Amino acid sequence: MAGSKCTRLSGALIQQLLDGVDSVLFDCDGVIWRGDQAVPGAPEVVNLLKEHGKRVFFVTNNSSKTRRMYADKMARMGFKVTPDEIFGTAYCSAMYLKKVAGLKGKVYLVGSDALRQELEAVGIQATGVGPDHVSGSQCDWAHVPLDPEVKAVLVGFDEHFSYMKLNRAMQYLTDPGCLFVGTNTDTRLPLEGGKAVPGTGCLVRAVEIAAHRQAEKVGKPNHFMYDCVASQFGLDRTRCLMVGDRLDTDILLGSNCGLKTLLALTGVNKVADAEAHERSGCPDRKKMVPDYYVESIADLLPALQG
Amino acid sequence: MAGSKCTRLSGALIQQLLDGVDSVLFDCDGVIWRGDQAVPGAPEVVNLLKEHGKRVFFVTNNSSKTRRMYADKMARMGFKVTPDEIFGTAYCSAMYLKKVAGLKGKVYLVGSDALRQELEAVGIQATGVGPDHVSGSQCDWAHVPLDPEVKAVLVGFDEHFSYMKLNRAMQYLTDPGCLFVGTNTDTRLPLEGGKAVPGTGCLVRAVEIAAHRQAEKVGKPNHFMYDCVASQFGLDRTRCLMVGDRLDTDILLGSNCGLKTLLALTGVNKVADAEAHERSGCPDRKKMVPDYYVESIADLLPALQG
Repeated sequence: MAGSKCTRLSGALIQQLLDGVDSVLFDCDGVIWRGDQAVPGAPEVVNLLKEHGKRVFFVTNNSSKTRRMYADKMARMGFKVTPDEIFGTAYCSAMYLKKVAGLKGKVYLVGSDALRQELEAVGIQATGVGPDHVSGSQCDWAHVPLDPEVKAVLVGFDEHFSYMKLNRAMQYLTDPGCLFVGTNTDTRLPLEGGKAVPGTGCLVRAVEIAAHRQAEKVGKPNHFMYDCVASQFGLDRTRCLMVGDRLDTDILLGSNCGLKTLLALTGVNKVADAEAHERSGCPDRKKMVPDYYVESIADLLPALQG
Repeated sequence: MAGSKCTRLSGALIQQLLDGVDSVLFDCDGVIWRGDQAVPGAPEVVNLLKEHGKRVFFVTNNSSKTRRMYADKMARMGFKVTPDEIFGTAYCSAMYLKKVAGLKGKVYLVGSDALRQELEAVGIQATGVGPDHVSGSQCDWAHVPLDPEVKAVLVGFDEHFSYMKLNRAMQYLTDPGCLFVGTNTDTRLPLEGGKAVPGTGCLVRAVEIAAHRQAEKVGKPNHFMYDCVASQFGLDRTRCLMVGDRLDTDILLGSNCGLKTLLALTGVNKVADAEAHERSGCPDRKKMVPDYYVESIADLLPALQG
């Protein structure tokens, strides 16, 4: 039913949708918070969903915080959540390397200390965190000392990204047996007031180009993020709702996994973006059209309070 | 005549080819030198070509040296050349910004001090050379102080490439009036013994992804490198020979500009690579098939000495 896509969610339709779902997966930035401010009404919506017996999860491509750091941030904003409900790419990358890739060895990590902590929490040692400034000549760079125990390169958000890190990652990846994983491919990290800074996707792509290899991507829209939640909590995909502000990550993840999808207009994309995908006639683009949209997830409040 | 492509150049064919050309454009690394060693016989070939009245030029995508630095390096190896015969992307990017783009303002330069010197030599001021380590928070990065006189971002080889440089380039490029130029797109810098380090292409692509814009590329295979030589020396393209070791830069430049092309097997590509392009039937790939090939440009010596 083409006419049923991208429907504004309001009135009785809200209750009808909620009756059909047991679990709600929320993207974070642009949906439940913006920067350091909760989206008004978002904590109430999340807390009421839980009171109504729904399971609630948080699925974010940001790799710069541990589950514990996210739980603390959300508690300060008034969300009643526990760390095991939070699935960031730091945690999910650790799970991917351990459970899916079966890594036996260390990780050369282009990423944050939070990412290192999540790896360590599942028993994976990581090297590489922090500054790595260039020294010596080209010949020294090509012969940079490598740790023989490193069996994977993981690229996440890294404010200390440098030519030397790019080089070290490339040298490790000349071994075809070395795994290559990227946390996500977001090109920018949006901030308040329309500003942004470069995202992890720039770093992953730079390493891919140097290494002449493609990284496995853990983050949305890759289905692994959903699989990670589903395998731990036994989700029924037909009774899950994915809520996000981005069509190319959140909504596409939902489509890729057969979930119901809801676009919140508090972040990156607008209804016109979804309509353009719908009109394109392109099957790949149509996967980015949400089932529903709301101005803000606060629009769910009346149904939950009623 | 499909059968006439990728012919081994030997015997009488060498003299026939040389009779048909007034000017020879050489790529450098992998053709006339490898690392710090001249390809055996290359200085004699170059010097004899000039004695025979041919004009000889050197066209390299490497942006890390000035024309003067190249001339000194080549003199040490026994080549009789002058700086004005050398067209590296450092010099050519300066010419591009000044002559083609008509830049009025400063450049934010992700690149070497040599590149800065070539810009300065044509009267363009550049800022940004050297280390730029990260400090502060995301919000500080998004509001990093920008020089209002900067009207172009130029990305070349930069061993000090860092997240902060990526961010600064992106912030400048949010102004659609800011020009965006990359010296070249080579993904790796090949070194002796099959080793390599990341090339400028990784850095250009990272900035393109962050900026959501495409850079103008100065280096081979863009025709600008040839135009730069041709406009200064009044070349007749039908009487020019382009000699290189890479199909996707050197030979493609030659094809793009209507020059005769010669692949030297002392560098990156092999005859099988050219044959695969020929067999592909793809018009774009067929442009990377050279007219001729030699094991080494030293193969031209007998004809020049005879």
